[in-house]
Amino acid sequence: MARPRIGIWLVGAKGGVATTTIVGLVALRKGLRTPIGLVSALPRFAGLAPTDWPDFVVGGHEIRAVRLADEAAKLSRISRALDPDLVAPCRDDLDDIDRLVRPGTIVGVGPTIGQMADAAGVPPRESPAEAVERLSADLAAFARSAELAHVIVINVASTEPPADAPAVPDRWAKLEPLLAEPGRCPLPASSLYAIAALRSGCSYVNFTPSLGSAPAAIGELARLQGSRHMGCDGKTGETLMKSVLAPMFAQRNLAVLSWVGHNIFGNLDGKVLADPANKKSKLATKDHLVRDILGYAPQTLVSIEYIESLGDWKTAWDHVHFQGFLGTPMTLQFIWQGCDSLLAAPLVLDLARFTELAWRRGHVGRMPFLASFFKSPQGVAQQDFTRQFQMLEAWADGSADPPPQT
Amino acid sequence: MARPRIGIWLVGAKGGVATTTIVGLVALRKGLRTPIGLVSALPRFAGLAPTDWPDFVVGGHEIRAVRLADEAAKLSRISRALDPDLVAPCRDDLDDIDRLVRPGTIVGVGPTIGQMADAAGVPPRESPAEAVERLSADLAAFARSAELAHVIVINVASTEPPADAPAVPDRWAKLEPLLAEPGRCPLPASSLYAIAALRSGCSYVNFTPSLGSAPAAIGELARLQGSRHMGCDGKTGETLMKSVLAPMFAQRNLAVLSWVGHNIFGNLDGKVLADPANKKSKLATKDHLVRDILGYAPQTLVSIEYIESLGDWKTAWDHVHFQGFLGTPMTLQFIWQGCDSLLAAPLVLDLARFTELAWRRGHVGRMPFLASFFKSPQGVAQQDFTRQFQMLEAWADGSADPPPQT
Amino acid sequence: MARPRIGIWLVGAKGGVATTTIVGLVALRKGLRTPIGLVSALPRFAGLAPTDWPDFVVGGHEIRAVRLADEAAKLSRISRALDPDLVAPCRDDLDDIDRLVRPGTIVGVGPTIGQMADAAGVPPRESPAEAVERLSADLAAFARSAELAHVIVINVASTEPPADAPAVPDRWAKLEPLLAEPGRCPLPASSLYAIAALRSGCSYVNFTPSLGSAPAAIGELARLQGSRHMGCDGKTGETLMKSVLAPMFAQRNLAVLSWVGHNIFGNLDGKVLADPANKKSKLATKDHLVRDILGYAPQTLVSIEYIESLGDWKTAWDHVHFQGFLGTPMTLQFIWQGCDSLLAAPLVLDLARFTELAWRRGHVGRMPFLASFFKSPQGVAQQDFTRQFQMLEAWADGSADPPPQT
Amino acid sequence: MARPRIGIWLVGAKGGVATTTIVGLVALRKGLRTPIGLVSALPRFAGLAPTDWPDFVVGGHEIRAVRLADEAAKLSRISRALDPDLVAPCRDDLDDIDRLVRPGTIVGVGPTIGQMADAAGVPPRESPAEAVERLSADLAAFARSAELAHVIVINVASTEPPADAPAVPDRWAKLEPLLAEPGRCPLPASSLYAIAALRSGCSYVNFTPSLGSAPAAIGELARLQGSRHMGCDGKTGETLMKSVLAPMFAQRNLAVLSWVGHNIFGNLDGKVLADPANKKSKLATKDHLVRDILGYAPQTLVSIEYIESLGDWKTAWDHVHFQGFLGTPMTLQFIWQGCDSLLAAPLVLDLARFTELAWRRGHVGRMPFLASFFKSPQGVAQQDFTRQFQMLEAWADGSADPPPQT
Repeated sequence: MARPRIGIWLVGAKGGVATTTIVGLVALRKGLRTPIGLVSALPRFAGLAPTDWPDFVVGGHEIRAVRLADEAAKLSRISRALDPDLVAPCRDDLDDIDRLVRPGTIVGVGPTIGQMADAAGVPPRESPAEAVERLSADLAAFARSAELAHVIVINVASTEPPADAPAVPDRWAKLEPLLAEPGRCPLPASSLYAIAALRSGCSYVNFTPSLGSAPAAIGELARLQGSRHMGCDGKTGETLMKSVLAPMFAQRNLAVLSWVGHNIFGNLDGKVLADPANKKSKLATKDHLVRDILGYAPQTLVSIEYIESLGDWKTAWDHVHFQGFLGTPMTLQFIWQGCDSLLAAPLVLDLARFTELAWRRGHVGRMPFLASFFKSPQGVAQQDFTRQFQMLEAWADGSADPPPQT
Repeated sequence: MARPRIGIWLVGAKGGVATTTIVGLVALRKGLRTPIGLVSALPRFAGLAPTDWPDFVVGGHEIRAVRLADEAAKLSRISRALDPDLVAPCRDDLDDIDRLVRPGTIVGVGPTIGQMADAAGVPPRESPAEAVERLSADLAAFARSAELAHVIVINVASTEPPADAPAVPDRWAKLEPLLAEPGRCPLPASSLYAIAALRSGCSYVNFTPSLGSAPAAIGELARLQGSRHMGCDGKTGETLMKSVLAPMFAQRNLAVLSWVGHNIFGNLDGKVLADPANKKSKLATKDHLVRDILGYAPQTLVSIEYIESLGDWKTAWDHVHFQGFLGTPMTLQFIWQGCDSLLAAPLVLDLARFTELAWRRGHVGRMPFLASFFKSPQGVAQQDFTRQFQMLEAWADGSADPPPQT
Repeated sequence: MARPRIGIWLVGAKGGVATTTIVGLVALRKGLRTPIGLVSALPRFAGLAPTDWPDFVVGGHEIRAVRLADEAAKLSRISRALDPDLVAPCRDDLDDIDRLVRPGTIVGVGPTIGQMADAAGVPPRESPAEAVERLSADLAAFARSAELAHVIVINVASTEPPADAPAVPDRWAKLEPLLAEPGRCPLPASSLYAIAALRSGCSYVNFTPSLGSAPAAIGELARLQGSRHMGCDGKTGETLMKSVLAPMFAQRNLAVLSWVGHNIFGNLDGKVLADPANKKSKLATKDHLVRDILGYAPQTLVSIEYIESLGDWKTAWDHVHFQGFLGTPMTLQFIWQGCDSLLAAPLVLDLARFTELAWRRGHVGRMPFLASFFKSPQGVAQQDFTRQFQMLEAWADGSADPPPQT
Repeated sequence: MARPRIGIWLVGAKGGVATTTIVGLVALRKGLRTPIGLVSALPRFAGLAPTDWPDFVVGGHEIRAVRLADEAAKLSRISRALDPDLVAPCRDDLDDIDRLVRPGTIVGVGPTIGQMADAAGVPPRESPAEAVERLSADLAAFARSAELAHVIVINVASTEPPADAPAVPDRWAKLEPLLAEPGRCPLPASSLYAIAALRSGCSYVNFTPSLGSAPAAIGELARLQGSRHMGCDGKTGETLMKSVLAPMFAQRNLAVLSWVGHNIFGNLDGKVLADPANKKSKLATKDHLVRDILGYAPQTLVSIEYIESLGDWKTAWDHVHFQGFLGTPMTLQFIWQGCDSLLAAPLVLDLARFTELAWRRGHVGRMPFLASFFKSPQGVAQQDFTRQFQMLEAWADGSADPPPQT
């Protein structure tokens, strides 16, 4: 009996994260690499029988006129992120996937992202409703032509400026009509992709700090459609470190006085984040963890700066000033030098696999058991990485979903 | 009704850790400082009603002829570890405690520690049996004269060279007779203190990498006497970091290639560890964690070097080289700058409080729920700090002790 | 024969740098400390017979209503910068100096500094001309009452926002009349202090990035009066490092790709620099060196952030990304943890001593041989620290002043 | 008129440094890379008209049976040091050079290096005199067959254990006869290569800490033959940093309390240095600088550890503890992440070019003006990098050689 084929639909399909995800999937499929960095490949989760690499089909939306193989070559040559001898044998597969990528939408993405749109077929102007229609049709065509049992839409596009979230109505019945009114609809592209996905019965995962499926009304849509979703913002480097170190300070009752984190990197995401509006979204998801975990508010500072020469290599320096016994101040510093796309890509594949399992199990609505993958897990207050990971373990072991949290 | 008074008996009573513990206890008693750094003071454990600071009485064994107040002054002036305005008001209390300190033993401590023994009354030569008798008598006198309900003996003395552990018989009945045969008894001082404590009905905690109560025969003695014990080696800085970072790599399936840790510091402990024999004990407890947690053995290197100018400020640089997705090598480095004695002292007080609770609850034998405090928790395989902390939480919440682990 | 007494007049006389300078001078005079950190105390310069500590008399201008002894106590207790046992014996001397401090001016200092002015006698409003008159009178009274042979005015006040330098006329004859026209005079306080000093025959040294004596017209005034001056911005920590590391990259022909420097600290200077206007002046003097030394312009980033818990401890993390042979990118990072005031104070004393020597030698105008003390040495293009230091050596050895540079 | 062709003869011709030097030379000749990292390519030295890349011919001695192209591929694939697209076009040239490499000698190299000798033609046993004869014949054949005007022998082989230097007679007349007495001759291979070079009229440069031409008798041979030589140990990374940072501390009169440097890397050199005997030679040249420059002896610690996963990427962490004004301790730390071979290779080419110039100018004996390239420049006390560089500038500008120093 043939195994069901599962679609992964990447929003921002030719960005650094997507390109790396695709190269990685192809490499795993061809047996060129072992599944290092994949949570779903841990022996711990072997019993779940997650979808195997050959059973995934990839497509996506993109607004830029670039070629996947060129983007992969750049990650290899300029960033020294991918081995050249890995990229070469994947080239044909990348070209095949190129053909499955459809023009995205620039509704509500802000000027910095908007001006990068040069792919043929990206409408310079369309109403939210038109965009949702168009994107949904793409998803349907993808599922049909590739004979897919299920499609998981994952947003890995550049970070949008903060949306006017309070202006989004709480109920789907109130939000849906706004889609037809461009001037009044506060939803950015990421939310339109979410709506297109959920009303098509696809799963939706938001790997970015953009709004996506966060509004209550879109969550309601997911439940109405019997679908599932989760976000937001993949937890890959500096924030992952915070989510294991802050609990250490809390559990040892060491008083954090200040926590400063400076991030420098030079990829396209970094360029977009050089726009203060877009950066604001990012800093918001990076900066609350320490407070949430400690239960008090030390002075915190998070910066992200675009340093072109670093390419995809994100370097973070964190300086934690804390008070020890009898009040003596002490210091912990760490320097993280990681390849941004390579840290994100395996999590994208993990999210596809765990979401597929949730679909298989009939899970509807938010997926709190995926909290460990996100900087700001929707609906989950727990920010301690190990305890989040235990939520995944418990779910995998078939325990009932943990009760919803605020 | 008067609350029961609890004794804390420190082996190595005038070393840096003990001095800081005592200054801290006095400062807490006087309300000069808040309980920062004390796990037992977390709101999480408030329901346990741990012993209050005024209800502790401190004594101990020491082999060096120094004055607590002078040692505290050194920690303040030379190491800049303690505030001078904290030490001054504690001086009289320190002098009082000085009078409760009795001469320790140098049986089996090795030459580096042995040559530091200049306190009046430290026998230059005594048999293990004589030492145990003498130390037991000191404990009994302490309990009687201070009207103590219970005494907890905590070893914070300098690290002994590795003992010949395999030469220690497995059963108490076989070990006890050896005590009278100096040439054949392989036990170092730390184990003699443990025996003296346990057969006197005291609890015993080993905060150092020395042998202490680790031999099975001594564990048997504890059970026979209905007492309790735990060790070994307080987890204060670099190793604490390893116990939260290694699980992160494991849970993200990132392949650690090498883990290098260099520690530099300049206190008395550091001087003792400059002797390769003594250092060997320390490195052993510092170096197994990464392997234990990861489940495989990357190349590891741990060094401890005595750099006099640093005094009590231990600086650790760790370099973790790991392989990310698709095999690309990445790096995490951290620099920990902490005051060694100030990191250890609150844990000593925590161990006294939690051990007193265990005594109150009638716990007999090893105390695995204290694993989070130790680099090498006896009888506990779990090395993930958060999961160890959960063992403490579960025990505090009154759950049955977790089943023994190998 | 009595040695001549020399006055040091500190602008910002009760700030962190001034307080530390004064405590240091008193401590040196009393023999409480050796002259560590003083360039003028190097054996190399012993032959110059610089003014001895007892022969200096200190006074100054200040706008805040604080007490030197309290400020010193803060540097001791809060910042752990000064030893408490050093501050105590200096207390009476500090109180004496307090009495020699006169109200400063807030003309042109900007709102952030202006709102800190609470000392009695600071005029809420005065014309530049009135300010110069008043400040000059203070200097004259100081010299007279303390029977001083010469007075050196050193600006260690908080950094002003950038002045409208192009609006300052080039000739003193054109600038002087503007002083009487508050609405048209573009000079900030630092320049008024410079004018007051120079027309009184005092020497003037600008230890801050503020405008001070930088305008050509003020330099002309110095020459007309036969006086001398230099600036600007003391080179104490991160920038000092840049001035030795950038030449290394240049001399090895290693191509610097980017140089990122993040500075965090929490003293009053930091608070003032949290105002973007004031910060701009500072960043300007910190950011040009790398370009100047390398002869090309890699991407650079310098940030200064106010992190209160750090007090006077300035921590800088610099990340230098450079291209080695055959184009391979490599990295140098450094972390500097220094006490800001303690790094600045000895240089202030050095500048006083070397300036006194220049006065003794009859030097008039700018003092380029002091370049090694400054981030932006006026009139000196050489930014390589060692070569700047050689300029000092050459001058000390009696070589003719090096030819003026642009 | 044809330009003269110059030979570079590399001892250790297929090691990491040599391979990188050769790849670099070929790449520069082909115009594949710009001369980043080459001191001799600075505009400062353009007037010297150093030998152009096409005019160099490379050969060498090697004891291992490897292929240059394979070694280059390893540096690319395993160490990520060389770009794969750089290595590919150089492959044929590397194979050509392979044919010019002759079997080296293992006389006096110690067991760790000795056991690596598997190249055909390396005599398992030969007397020093036989070795010198054989190596000299190789040099003569190279010069003749390639029609070279001059040959520069550069030792880039693995570090030998410390030789018994005091046992080497001071005069050549006394040393020469010892060569024929294997049991009595204390010279290691590096010195035999030096003798072979110098008596053949070649120049000799020792890029390693091995003995080489250091003995006075060999220096005498150089003078007798009218040849020139210099060493020892190329200054590439951590020590280069020390030679710019220590002068900074000295010139600012900051008292260095301790200087700790830990170096980790994983190339073949690292493997050889894992032998304590070989490591001893290296540590000696790395550890004296700080003392030499400061003029006093703070506690220093230098370690070099073989961490296989790092390959050619040498990472150094240095922790400098220093006392600032009024005795307050402060800290500077740096982390250097450089590719060892890529840092060394351009200096090898520079040394070839500057040595050729010295030959052209008729310089005989030691070359102190090359001090800036070495950790332990023979006959030069000056360890300040900038002042060493000025010696090079002065020599290049045609100033007389500086007077010899002890």
